Amino acid sequence: MGGSLAMSLKGKCARLIGFDPHLPTLELAHSKNILDHAEAFLLHAEHSVDALKTALGVNVIILAAPVTAIFDILKQLPSVVTSTCVLMDIGSTKCDIVQAMSDLPGNFDPIGGHPICGKETLGFEHATANLYQDAPFVVTPLPRTSGKARTAAKQIISAIGANQIEMTAEDHDRALSSTSHLPFLLSSALAHSTPREYSRLIGPGFRSTSRLAGTPSHMMMGILRSNRENILRKLASFRNSLSEFESALQNEDYPALEEMLNQSRHSYQAIVGS
Amino acid sequence: MGGSLAMSLKGKCARLIGFDPHLPTLELAHSKNILDHAEAFLLHAEHSVDALKTALGVNVIILAAPVTAIFDILKQLPSVVTSTCVLMDIGSTKCDIVQAMSDLPGNFDPIGGHPICGKETLGFEHATANLYQDAPFVVTPLPRTSGKARTAAKQIISAIGANQIEMTAEDHDRALSSTSHLPFLLSSALAHSTPREYSRLIGPGFRSTSRLAGTPSHMMMGILRSNRENILRKLASFRNSLSEFESALQNEDYPALEEMLNQSRHSYQAIVGS
Repeated sequence: MGGSLAMSLKGKCARLIGFDPHLPTLELAHSKNILDHAEAFLLHAEHSVDALKTALGVNVIILAAPVTAIFDILKQLPSVVTSTCVLMDIGSTKCDIVQAMSDLPGNFDPIGGHPICGKETLGFEHATANLYQDAPFVVTPLPRTSGKARTAAKQIISAIGANQIEMTAEDHDRALSSTSHLPFLLSSALAHSTPREYSRLIGPGFRSTSRLAGTPSHMMMGILRSNRENILRKLASFRNSLSEFESALQNEDYPALEEMLNQSRHSYQAIVGS
Repeated sequence: MGGSLAMSLKGKCARLIGFDPHLPTLELAHSKNILDHAEAFLLHAEHSVDALKTALGVNVIILAAPVTAIFDILKQLPSVVTSTCVLMDIGSTKCDIVQAMSDLPGNFDPIGGHPICGKETLGFEHATANLYQDAPFVVTPLPRTSGKARTAAKQIISAIGANQIEMTAEDHDRALSSTSHLPFLLSSALAHSTPREYSRLIGPGFRSTSRLAGTPSHMMMGILRSNRENILRKLASFRNSLSEFESALQNEDYPALEEMLNQSRHSYQAIVGS
């Protein structure tokens, strides 16, 4: 996500500095001439403090990391960044992150962000400059968020071609448990329950439904912890729908089953817009 | 499926005749110069008998229709086709179809077929000549299937660029309940349980996981009826996996949850081959 963001911001800001704990990522970004400056950044490592000092004087810091890492970075930032700057994250949950942001010292001007795009394949080698094009990009301002931070977020979102949606962190987390975190768990449980010897008998249907199961678990654990209650509610709601389908099939009540499938199709068309 | 099949067979057989109950489909196929001959074919309609007589003398008949329609056609065929011909279907379940084929008169040389590809959008306007390229194409011969029918199936499958897999109808239906019919029900139940007001908050994850919910129910009902018992078993197995995920999240047993997600990812990679 961070790599794609850098690629889409390239040439659209005065100076683009990349921090990453993974040296090959920085080298790749450097070799592709995407960053104006690159720094290794290792959490909890002494030299990271020096590295982060490069960020002094920057106008905007964007945290592009798994949710768990964002919490760690938010703890560490105040010890190295003392100048005034806008701080936005692009983590997949918002309540806990915005809460952690609200505890930051006054030199930070924080705003929560979440671009709803991405892939199950991570890493800079899969980054693409058009990842954010036409994607919904939620911003969740804090009570302390200034007009300047809102404007910065708006300019960044516009520069990368995404569509800004402002909402509360609570509304965001409730909706995303439904549209993102539940689908991930379903894909995973599908892959979990599918015998591997069927690999030669899959088509685009299985490929599509199970795709999110390919997401590395370290990307998802922070999200699942952070949005646990909403996700549990959505799981219960999904289980109810699936049980209705199952009962109709079990009881050979085909008119009821067909009616539910038609409702699902209309719902799919209304949501996905096809 | 039938439209795409005609497009991929175009120029690769002596004479290509298309039958369809939907006149605009035939007109479109005709206007695109895909068929050598097109005939309206309405089940249970008097003139269909005349129409089908065009098929007299053909070497191979391929039934490309929803499962329910295939059963109807199989009942009607003997009254109009009395010459010797190979008969293959491309329906999504095989046990019931192969069973129905076994009751056909001796002039038919039947073989079950199922190309594992397709889209959630049906109709000739969505047909593409490369739909079958590299797709698995299961054939399920009957005890009465001749070497000639096997060779015809092999030639057709090779001509359209698909990969032939021979197996029993029982093994096919068991595997496909897992790799195709269950994913369809999960996608549908996901769409069913997702509030429509979240439509502006979806990304590629939801799009991918819910895609099969867009499949018209009339395509699926025959499949669900015909493969009901296998599907119910797979639903139970999926429910078990999902319950394990849910319990771990409920109990905040994150190491167990992460372990299951890792297993799912490895399973996904082993099955989908990425």
